[in-house]
Amino acid sequence: MEVIKSKENNLIKEVRKLKEKKYRDLNKSFLIEGFRFVEEALKSNFEVKYVFICEKQKEKFQRLGFENLIDKTTKSFEVSESVLNTISSTETPQGIVAVVKNKISNLQIKNGFYILIDKVQDPGNMGTIIRSANASGALGVIITKGTVDTYNNKTLRSTMGSIFKIPIIFEDSDFNNVKKLKENEFKLITSSLNTEYNFYDIDLKGKVIIAVGNEGNGISKDIFGLSDISVKIPMPGNAESLNVGVAASIMMFEAVRQIKIE
Amino acid sequence: MEVIKSKENNLIKEVRKLKEKKYRDLNKSFLIEGFRFVEEALKSNFEVKYVFICEKQKEKFQRLGFENLIDKTTKSFEVSESVLNTISSTETPQGIVAVVKNKISNLQIKNGFYILIDKVQDPGNMGTIIRSANASGALGVIITKGTVDTYNNKTLRSTMGSIFKIPIIFEDSDFNNVKKLKENEFKLITSSLNTEYNFYDIDLKGKVIIAVGNEGNGISKDIFGLSDISVKIPMPGNAESLNVGVAASIMMFEAVRQIKIE
Repeated sequence: MEVIKSKENNLIKEVRKLKEKKYRDLNKSFLIEGFRFVEEALKSNFEVKYVFICEKQKEKFQRLGFENLIDKTTKSFEVSESVLNTISSTETPQGIVAVVKNKISNLQIKNGFYILIDKVQDPGNMGTIIRSANASGALGVIITKGTVDTYNNKTLRSTMGSIFKIPIIFEDSDFNNVKKLKENEFKLITSSLNTEYNFYDIDLKGKVIIAVGNEGNGISKDIFGLSDISVKIPMPGNAESLNVGVAASIMMFEAVRQIKIE
Repeated sequence: MEVIKSKENNLIKEVRKLKEKKYRDLNKSFLIEGFRFVEEALKSNFEVKYVFICEKQKEKFQRLGFENLIDKTTKSFEVSESVLNTISSTETPQGIVAVVKNKISNLQIKNGFYILIDKVQDPGNMGTIIRSANASGALGVIITKGTVDTYNNKTLRSTMGSIFKIPIIFEDSDFNNVKKLKENEFKLITSSLNTEYNFYDIDLKGKVIIAVGNEGNGISKDIFGLSDISVKIPMPGNAESLNVGVAASIMMFEAVRQIKIE
């Protein structure tokens, strides 16, 4: 394993830039850290370009059998603690960081449901929706422009590894993915507080896209314009709204329930 | 309105201590901040002991009619910006802080559901559950010892004001509240990953307590021992688990659905 001890090493400098969204977009790659997260990446069908292991954690790396997980598409490096700290984004680094290539997923035209995330801003909410989408067996997650970056550190951590297990589709500014799904009999269901349609009255079997919007402003005009029906989750209590990650999850698991009892 | 300009003022020193759980417990009071949150407290049936308004925000305070919301149980003070900053817990203080007395709620023996939070550790998850409980019309939130403090700043913010709108019951170490509910025909439903009972097959009408547990370890032994049935939310996808705030919300809103269609 090659050893890197200088923070000024060119590869380390390139990797460090991936902490910024601009460079993640440019390089179509993102950073992950921690033994469990890196293990999930190595076991997934994502391409892991680099693994950096802190010299102090090399024994654990070998004991956990990470060397066997690494195939020839991945290069691994031993780095000093000070070098590792410069590419880590956590306060207490676990001593292992990896660079993973984005993976492009295609639309699947078959029975089931997509979750559409429209301009959600909080990375924790975003990660929670991806985790719940994975748990619920959603066909995939469609993300509109203006949504918080999928690949930022906090979003990734909140997905609890689900980022590697569910197709992510980045919508373009003409909404061609949503339009294509609609042409193929998918119904777009948008959540809103300003509608009389009760979410629980809606048939979620067959082909559906469930859309949730921004924390403050809800679904954007563009998505609303493509909507087949706008529904609200009934709230018998006197709270004003639900957390968007919760609302998305309640709707996806209502689809699970309906599909199960079919 | 009395004016306080010194950080060493005795009242300010007492209020500042409420940032620590130990002093919140001792004084049975907690801190909130921001115009919207303080407005909700003043409009609620909680006792607001003190309101501190930064001199720079006094005009807004008057314009929004806060003076009319304040009754004689509340004392309000004008404070300098530097004094306000010492009692605020946020990076960008909104210029208004209040001290609110804890409110003791009693059990309600009637049809409906309680949510029991058993040793949840993340304040964001805790706040989300309280918010969803309020939205779903739950009878109340029962909190076991060892759960993250309900009155810490991050929990309170995540409740989005629901802290003032739903009864909170702090369970004792003998679980007398749960036992009393069970004596009155409430069924205790615990969520678990190690059970074959499908959550969606359970009747949630009538009197139920829905329990969720710690992020890593689930329901504690004590609560498990009192459980009438242990269920899991079916997860057709390959995620390992759901976020606890999401799981609690899915279960509460399944109760909403069942009660609605009854």
